[in-house]
Amino acid sequence: MLKDIGENNANYQPGLSIDCVIFGFHDNQLKVLLIKTPYEDKWSLPGGFVPIDEDIDTAAVTVLNERTGMKGIFLRQFATFGQVKRNDKHFDNAVLDHFKIPREAGKWFTQRFVTIGYYALIDFLKAIPQKENKQEIIEWIDHKEVPALILDHAAILDKALSTLRIELNLMPVGYNLLPEKFTIPQLQKLYETILDKKLDRRNFLRKITNIGILTKLDEKKSNVAHKAPNLYTFDKEKYDEVLKNGLNQGW
Amino acid sequence: MLKDIGENNANYQPGLSIDCVIFGFHDNQLKVLLIKTPYEDKWSLPGGFVPIDEDIDTAAVTVLNERTGMKGIFLRQFATFGQVKRNDKHFDNAVLDHFKIPREAGKWFTQRFVTIGYYALIDFLKAIPQKENKQEIIEWIDHKEVPALILDHAAILDKALSTLRIELNLMPVGYNLLPEKFTIPQLQKLYETILDKKLDRRNFLRKITNIGILTKLDEKKSNVAHKAPNLYTFDKEKYDEVLKNGLNQGW
Repeated sequence: MLKDIGENNANYQPGLSIDCVIFGFHDNQLKVLLIKTPYEDKWSLPGGFVPIDEDIDTAAVTVLNERTGMKGIFLRQFATFGQVKRNDKHFDNAVLDHFKIPREAGKWFTQRFVTIGYYALIDFLKAIPQKENKQEIIEWIDHKEVPALILDHAAILDKALSTLRIELNLMPVGYNLLPEKFTIPQLQKLYETILDKKLDRRNFLRKITNIGILTKLDEKKSNVAHKAPNLYTFDKEKYDEVLKNGLNQGW
Repeated sequence: MLKDIGENNANYQPGLSIDCVIFGFHDNQLKVLLIKTPYEDKWSLPGGFVPIDEDIDTAAVTVLNERTGMKGIFLRQFATFGQVKRNDKHFDNAVLDHFKIPREAGKWFTQRFVTIGYYALIDFLKAIPQKENKQEIIEWIDHKEVPALILDHAAILDKALSTLRIELNLMPVGYNLLPEKFTIPQLQKLYETILDKKLDRRNFLRKITNIGILTKLDEKKSNVAHKAPNLYTFDKEKYDEVLKNGLNQGW
């Protein structure tokens, strides 16, 4: 993305960017994919511009695909960030200096930007984080140990997380985050990690079973001393149905 | 807004607009505020551009204020619309022709636009719909009888409505839509109108009471033959608390 800063400006929608909050679940941690660029001390969310002939959703898919090697996964627009003060001349100049772009040629980049936030939930083990250049670092970082981020990226990440927490009440979660076969305690741990609180075992079992998206397998988890827990899998058809119609019938 | 099409371009964020879906409740109808411009047969949502030195949320507040005369009311960003094909050369040219703006001077207006959708819930009786010019018509229209809309405004309206329905599970609704004193049947009717379905009277009473945002008044509705229903009011402090923390504790 940043290689295009000084040229090809007419190929992009002016003043508009995409930022992706990519969540993965591993080791009972909710991790987020972050990038350390060579021209800033702070880290950033993976992002990109919007090609003038591409839908914004397609531009978001491109960022996700380029940064993880993954396609066809759950990606959701959650908010657009457009405070005037989110723009930062110090940051802009650091980028231009790093790429040796004259101020005039970099005008397109230093204009005010509004950014559209998307979040994704992906299978940590299937993703292969991709650098854009050798000087970059790209890493999964526990969402509780996120370092200082550029611009308003900390607010974007916070909003993605709070949206995800709210959406746990509206849709099933887990399909892209857990192995194909899993135990109820594993699924509960995923919910507890996202919500950042302990859940009652029996309540969770009752609620999650009532949704009707789980298939109990005729196998138990191996390598467990005694009382091996049952293995489950998602009934993908029902899962997609609930994803579409919403979990909470509410009123 | 449209008077600025041919000039002052540098005063606005390029290729970005705001569209507001303004809902009001009256006569047991959920109404939406729509505009009929002189240069198109179709109707449109109230909208505007984003001043280069203003936050997007502020620009949305301005649209709402200019179109209804109201301030300080519930306004929520719900989605950003950025399909390439949402732009329509036929529409662009009709606007330029109407305002007698040469194609070259109107380039800023005919570029690709991405639009940020906001929805508002307002007190129908307090709003005073404002025209931008004499040739315009601005009207409250029942959401079930919306005429053909320009561009992707029908999709924007649909998305606002489906978001509002989902958010009924997450937050209390009614404060800006009902008179200060109201009956439970009035409140139920509001929910039924938004959800477009009948609700069970006793279930609704139980659920709405459990939220803890209602204060029962020591008055009954007058002008009712017998068994006059009790009047209620919102406990604004608790209402705001639930609005902030979310209605559904879920998991």
